Amino acid sequence: MAPRVYLAGPDVFLPDPMAVAERKKQLCRAYGFEGVFPLDAELDLGALEPQAAGLAISRANEELIRGCQLLIAQVTPFRGPSADVGTAFEMGFARALGLPVYAYTNVQSDFTTRTREFVRTTRARTDQVIEDPDGMAIENFGLADNLMLVGAVEHSGGALVSLDAPDSSRFTGLVAFQQCLRLAKREL
Amino acid sequence: MAPRVYLAGPDVFLPDPMAVAERKKQLCRAYGFEGVFPLDAELDLGALEPQAAGLAISRANEELIRGCQLLIAQVTPFRGPSADVGTAFEMGFARALGLPVYAYTNVQSDFTTRTREFVRTTRARTDQVIEDPDGMAIENFGLADNLMLVGAVEHSGGALVSLDAPDSSRFTGLVAFQQCLRLAKREL
Repeated sequence: MAPRVYLAGPDVFLPDPMAVAERKKQLCRAYGFEGVFPLDAELDLGALEPQAAGLAISRANEELIRGCQLLIAQVTPFRGPSADVGTAFEMGFARALGLPVYAYTNVQSDFTTRTREFVRTTRARTDQVIEDPDGMAIENFGLADNLMLVGAVEHSGGALVSLDAPDSSRFTGLVAFQQCLRLAKREL
Repeated sequence: MAPRVYLAGPDVFLPDPMAVAERKKQLCRAYGFEGVFPLDAELDLGALEPQAAGLAISRANEELIRGCQLLIAQVTPFRGPSADVGTAFEMGFARALGLPVYAYTNVQSDFTTRTREFVRTTRARTDQVIEDPDGMAIENFGLADNLMLVGAVEHSGGALVSLDAPDSSRFTGLVAFQQCLRLAKREL
């Protein structure tokens, strides 16, 4: 049976998430994997209040991850300098389960650079540490995002692929995703 | 032995993280817990290059969480409408391990409101869905943050405490943290 890959990322927020899901699944098949998209659980949310619907989706996604053998996360910066928090959560979830965690981003600048741009004003706390206007330190390890996310990829034997996609395909470009599949295929 | 609580949050970025760590640990002791702070691992990072240092911290934090019986995360919005991604990652990690996940925020507005303010311009995609200028849907479930984070709290038997702290103690206020301890003590 083909290893199942959980397709984490903000793709679920796209105007046509099922179109992206289908493209990602086709690519998965081409590399010998079965893609599992967060919206794959067949949930009947119609009768639920909004909060209950949100919690039902969360529970379904947790179960989908538990049924997978690896995870590929889109960590393209989302509404701020970092990856989407739901995606970060799912990376942590997969990592604790022992799954290889792969990640890709369509924005190649490093995390420190993006955070400095985002907070606009910075100030030196020490020779080594810069902080934002709230006095909160800015991570400066030369990594692609927060160290927990990048660490999970490294420790789990996955890989992080970073490419600059055109702005029009910032959340839809799949070249880096495909490189993750290629690397995962070589490992498994 | 006192149950060990992993103290997740952006507190590590504060000007004096060890002072906050000490205050949180004192409160933990008062409720019968032992607090474990992300910086508690004694790491000798001096000889490491920045990237290697970041990865060593990540590995140490993962091990600290594995040694805990529950987690209390500060999910006060951090550089954007959501919690810090490192914190989100750790919530996912703890959730997959089966730990009760508690969370608190010192900003009480709901996630949809914060996201709308952050992206400034929104547009209706359908009657139910609003999207940002990138065409990405805005979660609208009436929850405190992304559904994976809130779901983890709910499914794990934890609790999310939301209070408005003064802006000057947005990341340092501990009233909501203390309520998490009180609720956790009642459960365990």
